[in-house]
Amino acid sequence: MASLVSIKQLDVHTIEWLLQNAQSFVDYHGDARKGYSVVHLFFEPSTRTHLSFQMAAQRLGMEILDFSIDQSSVNKGESVIDTLQTIDAIGVDLAVIRDGGDWPALLVNEKLNMSLVNAGSGTFEHPTQALLDALTMQQHFGSLSGLTVTIVGDIAHSRVARSNVYLLHKMGVTVQFAGPEAYKTTHIENVEWVDFDEAVTQSDVIMMLRIQHERHAEHYEIADYHGRFGLNKARLNMMRKDAIILHPGPVNRNVEICDEAMADPRCKILTQVKNGVAVRMAVLDWCLQGGSDEKLVSA
Amino acid sequence: MASLVSIKQLDVHTIEWLLQNAQSFVDYHGDARKGYSVVHLFFEPSTRTHLSFQMAAQRLGMEILDFSIDQSSVNKGESVIDTLQTIDAIGVDLAVIRDGGDWPALLVNEKLNMSLVNAGSGTFEHPTQALLDALTMQQHFGSLSGLTVTIVGDIAHSRVARSNVYLLHKMGVTVQFAGPEAYKTTHIENVEWVDFDEAVTQSDVIMMLRIQHERHAEHYEIADYHGRFGLNKARLNMMRKDAIILHPGPVNRNVEICDEAMADPRCKILTQVKNGVAVRMAVLDWCLQGGSDEKLVSA
Amino acid sequence: MASLVSIKQLDVHTIEWLLQNAQSFVDYHGDARKGYSVVHLFFEPSTRTHLSFQMAAQRLGMEILDFSIDQSSVNKGESVIDTLQTIDAIGVDLAVIRDGGDWPALLVNEKLNMSLVNAGSGTFEHPTQALLDALTMQQHFGSLSGLTVTIVGDIAHSRVARSNVYLLHKMGVTVQFAGPEAYKTTHIENVEWVDFDEAVTQSDVIMMLRIQHERHAEHYEIADYHGRFGLNKARLNMMRKDAIILHPGPVNRNVEICDEAMADPRCKILTQVKNGVAVRMAVLDWCLQGGSDEKLVSA
Repeated sequence: MASLVSIKQLDVHTIEWLLQNAQSFVDYHGDARKGYSVVHLFFEPSTRTHLSFQMAAQRLGMEILDFSIDQSSVNKGESVIDTLQTIDAIGVDLAVIRDGGDWPALLVNEKLNMSLVNAGSGTFEHPTQALLDALTMQQHFGSLSGLTVTIVGDIAHSRVARSNVYLLHKMGVTVQFAGPEAYKTTHIENVEWVDFDEAVTQSDVIMMLRIQHERHAEHYEIADYHGRFGLNKARLNMMRKDAIILHPGPVNRNVEICDEAMADPRCKILTQVKNGVAVRMAVLDWCLQGGSDEKLVSA
Repeated sequence: MASLVSIKQLDVHTIEWLLQNAQSFVDYHGDARKGYSVVHLFFEPSTRTHLSFQMAAQRLGMEILDFSIDQSSVNKGESVIDTLQTIDAIGVDLAVIRDGGDWPALLVNEKLNMSLVNAGSGTFEHPTQALLDALTMQQHFGSLSGLTVTIVGDIAHSRVARSNVYLLHKMGVTVQFAGPEAYKTTHIENVEWVDFDEAVTQSDVIMMLRIQHERHAEHYEIADYHGRFGLNKARLNMMRKDAIILHPGPVNRNVEICDEAMADPRCKILTQVKNGVAVRMAVLDWCLQGGSDEKLVSA
Repeated sequence: MASLVSIKQLDVHTIEWLLQNAQSFVDYHGDARKGYSVVHLFFEPSTRTHLSFQMAAQRLGMEILDFSIDQSSVNKGESVIDTLQTIDAIGVDLAVIRDGGDWPALLVNEKLNMSLVNAGSGTFEHPTQALLDALTMQQHFGSLSGLTVTIVGDIAHSRVARSNVYLLHKMGVTVQFAGPEAYKTTHIENVEWVDFDEAVTQSDVIMMLRIQHERHAEHYEIADYHGRFGLNKARLNMMRKDAIILHPGPVNRNVEICDEAMADPRCKILTQVKNGVAVRMAVLDWCLQGGSDEKLVSA
């Protein structure tokens, strides 16, 4: 079986296959993967991603094993790879992991039969988020190629930004960044930093990132942040009529996005959530059939 | 789909329908609601209610999504209504919520496709508890109309008392209260406060409420409480032969109820637990079919 | 229905039946026990045992109810037996319990319809661990009778050691202990204490127990422990070619067992994990059919 750890492992053809398969799963609910089991290892808090993967597994007929971190052997000093080998020996087919970013360490030692799916990993990557963002754009614009996407906010710490850039560049999309100086990074290549106010008028997609209060409260006063880098009422009015607003959630209302923008029809945040389930169904299905795009079939 | 938030939204006809449907579900275990999913949002501790709703969902063939509060976006500052809209967009059919009492706030903003079921909400209401209490009384006495029910204990803070009074008054039952001065409330209308010792000899149903040590330790010494307002051995002997004892659980033994009363055949606490599953099946089923009593069918 | 609390309640014939049934379940995945429900009450941390019981239940088609300790009535002061009676009244068929060792207290008061399975209980017993260890030995050696098993480490606090001795003695196996003076016990009869270095050369099975840092850090420096009582490289080379290494997990690498021994083909720890699922399937199945070995059927 295959694992999905990074967008970098996917070629254009596979991405197109996954998006097409996800679209076919949007209204699917059946027994396509009955008898397969998945364990969710969530070492970081998550509502939408955890529930989304649960729903994806259930709508494919899979069985979900509960792994409570508080009750885990990880507390007893067992190494993560030993824990994974134990779970593998129990006979689980797939482990969905949200963690602090240990993938490179995990994969060096990998001797597992089960598939691993990255459900968000430190500042490394969040590949299913990039796929669901791409599906949402593709549904709205028909195709990805030629679009301009501006990603706004804490770029430096964002696994969402990373996975999106990798995927969108492969698909012929122009990506640009806006946000505070403090959040600039030189680790992501071929992306221009732009003035937010100019970018708002020109972009097809405004992707607002979450500000993590717990991490960055020192940099900006909240009110100040909203004025300078938030999607406030003034910027909402400057946006193109056919542009869309994305956000990986959960949203800090009136920090990243004002109430008016949340209620605007161009805001596709709940569509992203809905598409997240379909994309994860496609990813689970793809892993279970070995990751080869040739074997991919529509549901 | 419909939501069940308060007993006040149910008319007599609907209550009768729900009790009749619950009775028909007592021994049901099948696929009546296969393909439907429910998420349990429990913001307060609960053994019996949480397990009871899980069992109810499973005996209807439903799928249960796990929502761990510790891992939730609520910790990240997302508003409760945004969390609910996210869960709704994921495609969940029903959310069962136990919370601190935010229903009015939730419902003002409601734009949800999924149903909501109140599984106990602060000091507001606990409608499925009132329904299972009514089912237990109806099974024992044949009908509710004309019964006398004495509710004893911390009335002021009890959502169980509230929901019971609303339901029992609709069904023609006389409700009276007994308990400490400190727990009296003027917020529930048309209920007389009576002397506990007199009430014990006259009531068809003695409903003992749980004393919450954590909240009210200051008011009474435990031993003193049992003597004055507990169902002790002396009062057990004063009860009518065909009367019954109810308690929403968990019981503080020898505080609200003595060991002898717990072992007495008139004590119907485990019957309440059993009926709780059937009542919740009826409520889940009712919500999923839109809440209209005309569409209600026996299992 | 029957409960499995202690190896002592099983005779030789029943143990043979359970091992044979477990072998037949190794690759089973179906609906043999569809419609039955199990609740997992884990009051102590566990990865492998909790997941193993979940997988066992799912591979028999059973439904699993989630019981989160943090959300439980146990926090509200309800007695354990009252909690179990509540769960019983909800209609659960089976409760799998990992706890601090309260079985004797539980069983004195038992008035339950559901079965109880001991999933590890204080320093009392861990019967399914002994059964999976026996299955692993039997698969490797063909039969148990006549084997020599050396159990090494913290014997005094080990429920694994206890259950293994009880089972292996019934099956004609010679059991001996090795380990620090501080961990000696006189509570287990008919087992000789031997010199570890001699035992390594003569034993068919070396069963290393977990050192619980949290409990015994005062007794030995870790490095010192590994040299004196760990399965280090020198001792690995002294082992017989057809001997096997067992460990109940989770392993403290380079404390109980060195990396080389973990990678050695004689190390059967992951086989134990795999067999654990099959053994637990056999135990669940056995309980549900009433525990009588005459009614046991192969899957």
